[in-house]
Formats: sequence, structure tokens, C-alpha cells
Amino acid sequence: MADHVIGVDFGTLSGRAVVVRAHDGEELGSAETTYPHAVMSETLAATGAALPPNWALQDADDYIEVLRDAVPAAVAAAGIDAASVVGIATDFTACTMVPVLADGTPLSRVPQWREHPHAWVKLWRHHAAQPQADRINELAAARGEAWLPRYGGRISSEWEFAKALQLLEEDPPLYAAMDRFVEAADWIVWQLCGVELRNACTAGYKGIYQDGGYPSEEYLGALNPGFARFAAEKLSPQLAQLGARAGSLRAQAAAWTGLREGIAVAVGNVDAHVSAPAAGVVDPGRMVAIMGTSTCHVMIGSELAEVPGMCGVVEGGIVPGAWGYEAGQSGVGDILGWFVENAVPPAYHERASELGVSVHEHLAELGAGLEVGAHGLVALDWWSGNRSVLVDHELTGVLVGMTLATRAHEIYWALVEATAFGTRKIIDTFAAAGVPVREFVAAGGLLRNEPLMRCYADVIGMPISVIGSDQGPALGSAMHAAVAAGVHADIFAAAAAMGRCRRDVYVPDAARASAYDQLYALYLRLHDHFGVNERDLMRELQAMRERGAR
Amino acid sequence: MADHVIGVDFGTLSGRAVVVRAHDGEELGSAETTYPHAVMSETLAATGAALPPNWALQDADDYIEVLRDAVPAAVAAAGIDAASVVGIATDFTACTMVPVLADGTPLSRVPQWREHPHAWVKLWRHHAAQPQADRINELAAARGEAWLPRYGGRISSEWEFAKALQLLEEDPPLYAAMDRFVEAADWIVWQLCGVELRNACTAGYKGIYQDGGYPSEEYLGALNPGFARFAAEKLSPQLAQLGARAGSLRAQAAAWTGLREGIAVAVGNVDAHVSAPAAGVVDPGRMVAIMGTSTCHVMIGSELAEVPGMCGVVEGGIVPGAWGYEAGQSGVGDILGWFVENAVPPAYHERASELGVSVHEHLAELGAGLEVGAHGLVALDWWSGNRSVLVDHELTGVLVGMTLATRAHEIYWALVEATAFGTRKIIDTFAAAGVPVREFVAAGGLLRNEPLMRCYADVIGMPISVIGSDQGPALGSAMHAAVAAGVHADIFAAAAAMGRCRRDVYVPDAARASAYDQLYALYLRLHDHFGVNERDLMRELQAMRERGAR
Repeated sequence: MADHVIGVDFGTLSGRAVVVRAHDGEELGSAETTYPHAVMSETLAATGAALPPNWALQDADDYIEVLRDAVPAAVAAAGIDAASVVGIATDFTACTMVPVLADGTPLSRVPQWREHPHAWVKLWRHHAAQPQADRINELAAARGEAWLPRYGGRISSEWEFAKALQLLEEDPPLYAAMDRFVEAADWIVWQLCGVELRNACTAGYKGIYQDGGYPSEEYLGALNPGFARFAAEKLSPQLAQLGARAGSLRAQAAAWTGLREGIAVAVGNVDAHVSAPAAGVVDPGRMVAIMGTSTCHVMIGSELAEVPGMCGVVEGGIVPGAWGYEAGQSGVGDILGWFVENAVPPAYHERASELGVSVHEHLAELGAGLEVGAHGLVALDWWSGNRSVLVDHELTGVLVGMTLATRAHEIYWALVEATAFGTRKIIDTFAAAGVPVREFVAAGGLLRNEPLMRCYADVIGMPISVIGSDQGPALGSAMHAAVAAGVHADIFAAAAAMGRCRRDVYVPDAARASAYDQLYALYLRLHDHFGVNERDLMRELQAMRERGAR
Repeated sequence: MADHVIGVDFGTLSGRAVVVRAHDGEELGSAETTYPHAVMSETLAATGAALPPNWALQDADDYIEVLRDAVPAAVAAAGIDAASVVGIATDFTACTMVPVLADGTPLSRVPQWREHPHAWVKLWRHHAAQPQADRINELAAARGEAWLPRYGGRISSEWEFAKALQLLEEDPPLYAAMDRFVEAADWIVWQLCGVELRNACTAGYKGIYQDGGYPSEEYLGALNPGFARFAAEKLSPQLAQLGARAGSLRAQAAAWTGLREGIAVAVGNVDAHVSAPAAGVVDPGRMVAIMGTSTCHVMIGSELAEVPGMCGVVEGGIVPGAWGYEAGQSGVGDILGWFVENAVPPAYHERASELGVSVHEHLAELGAGLEVGAHGLVALDWWSGNRSVLVDHELTGVLVGMTLATRAHEIYWALVEATAFGTRKIIDTFAAAGVPVREFVAAGGLLRNEPLMRCYADVIGMPISVIGSDQGPALGSAMHAAVAAGVHADIFAAAAAMGRCRRDVYVPDAARASAYDQLYALYLRLHDHFGVNERDLMRELQAMRERGAR
């Protein structure tokens, strides 16, 4: 019975392919390929030239490596015949943008442009377009652009229009040479089937596509005269719904992957959004949090509501026929990783090694042993800015309460808590806007950090359900492949057959939850002070940082 | 010519003896003894029992070890005949309090009390008496006590009355058994010459002795009925001026030290205050900063002024016949030491080792190479509370501006800067109160950190002069020994003959000073937010910390 499908999840540092049995969702084998160039945030690998602060680039060719390595390796690991695979689908980080020629060739592959930083992929966490995002927001607010409330009132510097405007203003010749500015989610599909399409999900969430159109030429021209025809000229006009078939695997991609030419290739998708059906979530009111280096929160709603600071609400953005809400925290696992890399003294490394555990595990174990508040610390989880609900990537991290008795595991734990508080703030903001969260479903790599998950349950004060797969996004993609290949009629049927969720795995401890209410109140005071009332303080710090770095 | 004197400086972790030629101040030899029990802040060494947060105890017998070890070792290092020593003087950390019996025996030496934490020496940085300090301040303000403005409007939890009231309220039987509560500065002199005296310096700065008397019994009784007769019963009534002869070396102390019985023993003194004459500073308007684990600022003034948040102004508190001003920062080198111990990842340790420098030196070198503000950080230097100008030891450290690109040496440097901003805030507060600082003279262990000293000059925007001795306090004590022994007529003559100061060693860089003005403005905003307008936030954190630790 030839009903195998493949989902490929393109993450921040690697791509992961999973072979799935299409009728029941059983995962048969997987493989991962690390991007050779990882994330370029300090220097451009091609030239060694230093990059300005807040840049984050990738090499599009690294994504092709995943198709060449991880896909055949997953097939081998699954022990199946590659000929039995009937469809492939992909999901990607977003908003991750590739500047390309008309045939899809990345400008970074063109010798003339290779030394230009703007020729390379701008990863989602490229945060250097904040000045452009500020202007986008100010002008939209001043003009009362109807699309602005769909994004919580603020467009992020991470998104397409901010990134494009930065490219135009900092490298006009390259902008002129660029035929298309394409989401990596769509670019990889283009590579697989040779068809240039724009998936409804990123078009809506990251590309300001609302009610059938992009922002007007008048508005764009007011931002910058050279930007007036950006949407008309640099973006594909072909919108495509999630779950649809984009095309058929072309010969070159069949050669890369070892799969049969002509099998179904699904429309591109986003890692977070595709995780909802993977957890069996295709109905309203259940928030799926994909917790990894960053956290993305997605939720289906039957009604349109305007939630302050949400990333966006898009019709058909998660499943066809319903509103998809998205919110996010730009730094979560990233912050903990930063801490372990940059702020943990040798004694902890040695002790973790003696215990045969990772430094993360050692710190989390010690942190979880603390009574709530016993470290005397509270932090703001803004090392990578704040996506929801403040939508400001010039916000930065804060740590309050250190004494000479403070120890590294206490700070680590305060950072874990701060990310949990950030999640609670998002849940509270949705509820206040009339979109209550009735179930919290967790997915992503941080599920492995069990003390962290218990902390989240205590902080948000509700049970946490857990996706039944280690490979949520790839499984979700595989479902879309199954729909594109016609194995299931639609994503609802696919989710019912293939989705996996374990209910109420982490249940809050009442005493700790109550103590966290107090600590959360202090978090909120800091949040509003630095994020609302005195937001200029961090802006000034960032301005000094940028002047100092020049 | 028998004109040798010895100064012994009792610091936080060790005592240091220096042999000095009395007629010209030449330092002939020195030796140091580390206290065997160091600082007990987590457990009581005698029992292994855990101590509550914010405690800091010492063992008085460790101070005797310094007399037995460091003094003879310094004489040997100097290559002189011990019989040529004509006087000895001591200085101590303050307010460091010893509870004793009528004969001076520390209660910690009495088997019945040995297991009581309150029987041990409370080190200056014991910060657990903040609730008592709060009540002392509130009641004094409500009653309009005349002495309160002499202490900048707030009595510190580090000082005698707060520590004594905590002892009374937490261990009443021990309070009843205690015949005297004596400054370590006076206790060590008592051990040397058998005479119980109270030096004018600590009596004034730490003991609220003003205009010839202590706070009234009525006031003390209103704090706690059992406290009414504290000053009358538990403190020595014998006041003594700095530079006076306390008595003669007794036989047992001669046996400990190897010095001649009967030589002059000077009145006890405080490490910071005694450093001023060591730098030749015995005249108004020259601030001497003794920069070490903490920093103490002392300055002589011809007039009485009330400076908000100063530690105190005491007549004869530095030199006889003039007002002595004191201010301080509770954590400076301590904070940097905390950082190196608790927050520096292995790679820096390895690199420092490769370079053959200390981790401090490595971090300071990297930090000094940054453009001002290029790290994007600003910190509040309150790891050990804030002595001046906020006088609140429940204030805690703050760090703002971290991103995923922040590195350990940048945070180290932000901490260096924060301590410099704290110094500038003190200088500005003195100036605003009509006590301008016309010269800044640095002394203490942090002089060895040259990048830090350059940073201080840039931040305060004035040249920094430097004491001409590595052993400022001990040299200052030796001067007092010379006065007590009659070699010099008074401390002014001794300072002229023996003091050492190098003028304008560090001169500000105009561009960096100007950039620091901007960063200092941000520091002030954080300072006022957390220290004035929203002071309760850190109090709540500390309250949670204490509840959690129980």
C-alpha cells in the first residue's frame, strides 16, 4: 500500500525530514541536516566582512543540502521503498526572505551580488529593519490603514515589508536587480516543483495580504517613492491555499531527494502553523505553542477579533475557512542557550559533566528545586526583542534583583520564568480581547525540558497538553503532503487520522501558581515600565550601541 | 634611631600589618593574614547551621590571629629590631560589631552562646537588620530627631543601632547576657592595651553620637521598651579622639605580637577615614575614595552641611577640629568579584590563563576597548544594596539591555561603569548640597585595575589623583601610631611628613566623558525609578526571597 508521505521542516539551524504513513500518521523514520553556514550574524561567510548589529543572514543553498541529505536519509531510516512516497510538503521559519532573479536563483549565488549582505537570505530574526518598521507603523496609523489592526496595531521589523524597505534603502542597485522577494517557505516549493506560488499563510501573516490585496501603491509610495510598486513587481501574484497541491516534483528535485518525479508537492507552510493539525488542533480556542529557540502561538478562531500586539489574524492562515491567530515570543530557548553559552561559570559545566547531564538539565533541575521567588529575581524575556504583545525588536533583556548571593542557576530559572510570564501575558491579552484560551497545547524542542514545562503550567495556571510527536512541524507538513496527494480529503480529515495529542500532561501546583501570581505582577510592572511608559530608554541604549559599533 | 611604628589594617577578608619609619613614612615591610573563617554568610562554622539571607558574620578570634601572625611577620620582613617599634595603631571595617562580656570576651567564645548566630561578630555587610533600620528611620523622622539629618536622613541597616535592635528582638536572652556591644575597631584596641574606649569616629558615624550624646532613652524605648537603656548600658561611656593614645601595650598583646610591652597604642580608627591622612589629605574639599570590595568616600569640610544620603557628618570624624563627611557604595569590587565567580563562562577563564593574566584583567582589558555605549547595557550597582545616596540595603542589582549578542566582558564593563556612575551620583549630591568636590583622590585595592580607573575619570569628568601607597589604611594607622607615640605633634604634622599622593594620574578623555554623560542620564533614570519612585518593587522581591528561603 503506497501511502507514504514526507514532511520536511526547515528550522533556524537545521532541516529535518520525516517519513510518515499517510493513513494513520505513524512516523517511520527521520533525518536531520545542519545548515553549513548556520546563522550569519557577525560576519558574512562569503567575504568575512563584519555585519552591523541585529543582522541575521542565511545561505539559501544550505536549504538544498537538506533536500539532498536529510530526505534520502529519512527514507533509508524508515526502511521503505522511495517509490512508495506519494507526496512531499515543507514548512519553514518565517518571515525568512530570499531575494531572487526571475528564475528563482538567489542573488547570493550571482557573482556580481555575492559580496552584498543584502543579497543573502534574511532570517526571521534579522532585526535591523526596526527603523523601517517604525515608519511603516507610524504612516499606517496616521493614514488609518484598514489592515493595521489585523496585526495587533504594529507590523514587526521581522516581516516582509520592513525587510524589503531596508533592502531598498540600503542597497538600491540590488533592489533594482531583484526580480522577486520571496518567502523561503515558497522558494523551497519553487525549487521542488518549479512553480512560483505564494502561500496564503505567510502572505497574510508576514506579507500584509488582507481582504484580497496588499497595501496600496499610494501608501507604499509615501513610505518611499521607490517602494510604490514593491507589491506589484517584486511579489508573486499567485496566491495558494494551505493543503493545496502546488505542483509535481520536478526532475532535478527528484534527483536531489531520490523520490519519484511527479509526486505531489504541497503549498508551502510555516513551522508553527503546521504544528496545529499535527497536534490534532483544527478547532477554535485551543492555543498551540511551538516552543523552541523562539515560541510561536497559533490558535483557530471562528470570529474575527482584534487582539492588541498579536502577530496577525489571517483568514485560512492555519486551516481553510477559519481565522488563524498568531502571536509569538522572539526569544525563548535562544535566551536559555545564550545564558548557558555566555553566563555559566566553569563549576556548573564541571558538575553537569560529572552528573552526565547537559548544562541545561543541571541548571533546570537546580532551578526547579527553588521555592517560587526564593531567588529574589525577576527578568524581562526580551533578549531578542518582544514580538507579542509589544511588537518591538529594539526592546532588550532586563534582570532585576541580583545580590552577591545570587547564583547562576537562579538566574537561569528567572529566565525560564520570564519566558513563561511572556506566554501568560499573551494568553491574558487574547482573553481580554474576547478570544479566550480554553486549552494550552505545547509542541517543540523545549518539551524536553520537563522542569521548564512544569514551571509554565504553574505560571499560566492551567494544565498543559502536549503534542504526541517529537517532530510536530514535519508531521504537520506530512499531513499537508497527504492532502495534496489526495490520501485525505482535507486537513480536517488528515488531522483526525494522523494528529497526536496527550491531554493535561502538566497540571499546575496550586501553591506555586498562587506565588507566581505575585511574581507575575512584578513582571507586568517591569513590562509596562520598559515596554510602554519609558520605551525610549531602551531605544536610547540601542542607539548608543549602534553608534558605538560604527 | 628608634622611630618605627606599626599600622594594622583589618579588612573584610584579612588583616595586614605594615612597619613604617615614623619620621618620613617610608614603608619598610608588611605581612598579611587571611581570616581562617572569612565571612560566614551561608552557614555558621561552629555548627554548620544555615544562616538566613543577608547575614554576614565573622569570628573575633580571627582578628587575634592577625596580631599573632602578621605583626611579627611584618617586623621580620622590614628587617628591623622589634624593640625599635614605639607605637602601634589599628583600623577596622565598620560598622562591625562584637557582642562581649564585661571583660571583653566575645560571646562566641562562651560555650553557652556559641551556637547562637547572634553571639558572633556582625560584619559591616550584615544586611539582615533592614526592618529594624526602617523602624529607626520612620520613628526618627516622625519625632523629628535632630540627629537624623546628620546621616543624610537615613540610618543604614549596617549600623550599630539597627544591628543591636535586631539582636535584641531575635535573641533576647543573648541580649541580656551581653554586657557590651562594641565596635571591632575598639575591641581590638581593648585587646591590645586592656582599655575599653569608644573612638569618636565610629561613635559618630555608626553609633549616632552627635553633639555630645546618643539618641534619647525615650526614643529608644519607643522603638522597643527593652531597647530604652541600650546606649546607657551596652556602650562604653569613654569617648576618645582620633590620634590620642588609648593606652600601653599589655603583656599578653606583647607576647602575641613580639613587640615591647608598654609601647603606645592609639585609639581605634576606621579603614576609610584613616586613609585620608595617608594620602596627605587633611584639608577641605578633597574627596578620598577607598575603592575595594566596597568604596568609602571621606572628605573634610570646614562647615556643617546636610547632604542627602551621606553616611554621616561627624565633628572630628577624620581629623580633630573639622567636620568629617562620609559616603559610600556598599558593593564595588565585590560586584566584580561576584561576576567573575558566578557569571563568566569557561572560554574566558581559558583565554585569561593562556594570556597569563587574571580573569579580571582579561575582562577589563576587553571592556576598556569598547566604545562608550557600544555594549548597549546599563546597570545599577546595587548587588549589595545602596549605601549612598539611597541608604537602602534591600535594593538589589539591575542589568538592562541584554541581547543574544551580549558577551560576558560587556556585562563586566557595564558593572564597572555602574560603580563609576554610583560614585558620580555621590559627587553630584555633595555638590548640590553645597559641598563641592574639588579633587578626587583614589586609594584601595581597585587602583590595580587601571582600565577601571580610566573609566572612573571619564565618568566623573575630573582628573583622579592617587594615593602613593599600596597600604593606605595601614599607613594611615601608622601615622596615628606615630602621633600616639609622640613622634609627631598631631595628625596634620604626621600627614605632612608621612602622607603620599600622586596628582592627576588619570585624566578624562573629552569624547568619552561626553558620551558617558548620556549613559549616566540613563543610569539616573533607572536609579530614580527603582530607588525612589518604585522602591517597593525590590522590597517585594526581597520579601518573596525571604519567604522562599524559609
